[in-house]
Amino acid sequence: MKLALFNDFQLGVIVDDVIYEIGSRLFGHLHQGVSFCPMTQLIAEFDVYRPEIENHLHECPAYALADVRLRQPVKKPGKIVAAPVNYVSHQKEMKVEHTARGLGFFLKAPSSIIGPGDTIVLPDPNRRFDHELELAFVIGKTAKNVKAENAYEYIFGYTGLIDVTLRPDDVHHEERCLRKSFDTFTPMGPWIVTKEEIGDPNNVNMVLTVNGEVRQKVNTKEMICSIAELIEIYSRVMTLEPGDVITTGTPDGVGPIHDGDVIRMEIEGIGGYSVHVALASRTAALR
Amino acid sequence: MKLALFNDFQLGVIVDDVIYEIGSRLFGHLHQGVSFCPMTQLIAEFDVYRPEIENHLHECPAYALADVRLRQPVKKPGKIVAAPVNYVSHQKEMKVEHTARGLGFFLKAPSSIIGPGDTIVLPDPNRRFDHELELAFVIGKTAKNVKAENAYEYIFGYTGLIDVTLRPDDVHHEERCLRKSFDTFTPMGPWIVTKEEIGDPNNVNMVLTVNGEVRQKVNTKEMICSIAELIEIYSRVMTLEPGDVITTGTPDGVGPIHDGDVIRMEIEGIGGYSVHVALASRTAALR
Repeated sequence: MKLALFNDFQLGVIVDDVIYEIGSRLFGHLHQGVSFCPMTQLIAEFDVYRPEIENHLHECPAYALADVRLRQPVKKPGKIVAAPVNYVSHQKEMKVEHTARGLGFFLKAPSSIIGPGDTIVLPDPNRRFDHELELAFVIGKTAKNVKAENAYEYIFGYTGLIDVTLRPDDVHHEERCLRKSFDTFTPMGPWIVTKEEIGDPNNVNMVLTVNGEVRQKVNTKEMICSIAELIEIYSRVMTLEPGDVITTGTPDGVGPIHDGDVIRMEIEGIGGYSVHVALASRTAALR
Repeated sequence: MKLALFNDFQLGVIVDDVIYEIGSRLFGHLHQGVSFCPMTQLIAEFDVYRPEIENHLHECPAYALADVRLRQPVKKPGKIVAAPVNYVSHQKEMKVEHTARGLGFFLKAPSSIIGPGDTIVLPDPNRRFDHELELAFVIGKTAKNVKAENAYEYIFGYTGLIDVTLRPDDVHHEERCLRKSFDTFTPMGPWIVTKEEIGDPNNVNMVLTVNGEVRQKVNTKEMICSIAELIEIYSRVMTLEPGDVITTGTPDGVGPIHDGDVIRMEIEGIGGYSVHVALASRTAALR
């Protein structure tokens, strides 16, 4: 199943080139408080909602996929957990000693998420900001102290993430969290593909282009920690909750992005999306 | 106003030694989705709810404060933003070069929060875990690019936080996020005191004891970045949202905690609470 948020964060199910608005049917009776996300609600009680989706989808309002604005597929995750240095090729290009196996994870602010077609806003023309192509997955069931061999039970589905990153330099030494948590620094999408549609997530091809030129291209079998291992390591530390997003690290080829760039990412079995890049000073002028 | 979550995360207003259960009155008609937190809902629309609290508080169910279980005052914040190295005395004891002014912030997983009377669970008997006493504040209004001189408009109130921390050693080099995000590593409470009750938050005394012995004692005027400066720096990076928790860093005196310890923290004008410490192996055995 392909699940998306679209337009004003309505919940949709995608079949070919049509998106069915299922959220009103499932949650229309709920008073939706400030923290409500229809995707998180769906994920947390998917067993309850799934039959209703399967039996009544074609009674729901349908839109041409091309006519809607896709949003990030989780409005605001409880946490975004990210694997630092999870490809040897990226470890080499960054010349760093340790990998995700020893470093564990860092966190990105949930307020940094944007969706397909949105714009990455660079806050400073004098600093370097990089694209980082990543396969991400979404937690489906509360997970604590999960062993790798059982890890897939806790996955809801997969999506594509770009981990935009401010690079430190000789003068600046911000914490990694800050460098990756600027508003707009976590493009995510185009939707969530539920896990049964992806054979082995540790063996999918992905690619990122900037203005049509290939910058990052890899198969996820190159990851240092597999998806199952990441779940074991992270759930040993903390409880992973439905809707939490875990992103699996970037391969080599990271590089600077600039005002006016168009970045496209594509993951085999999931799909792709583009985002724009603009300097904050220019977006402010456009307002 | 003193606002708390208690028992099964019900919303209460505290007057002297009585807590009034106001949440049913304010939110009883809501079907509450998985992400619902009555405190976050209240904070986000405080102007709407405040008159109802003031006019109808004494019609609400009342309990002796001593008879309820206080919980963390925000069930699960959108983010927990933490100032690293924000006291010179702590910078000296840690022998580190940079302070919050250059480092910015790190993030703690919202899943790490516990409340007064709860237990900090240490996952490994062979590693060192430290207490860190901190004044925290809760964001009241969406804040982006806020100047220090306007910062107090965006604060909802204040609370007390203990930033429990796994120390790195010669063999281990986990990211700071991981070291501070273990489940139970963010005790918070005992309630939120709304900002108008605290004169100057940059001039309050606070103290932390372990088994009755004073370990950390400071006045917040010793902070390197004031609360207003933190809001300016952090809101330049990312949008701060109602219910987000920002914790202002720890003074010197941090030190290891052990199985069986009782930690108490107390902040002038706010109040205090105790938490217990237990090894994971022992809590597992007790289950």
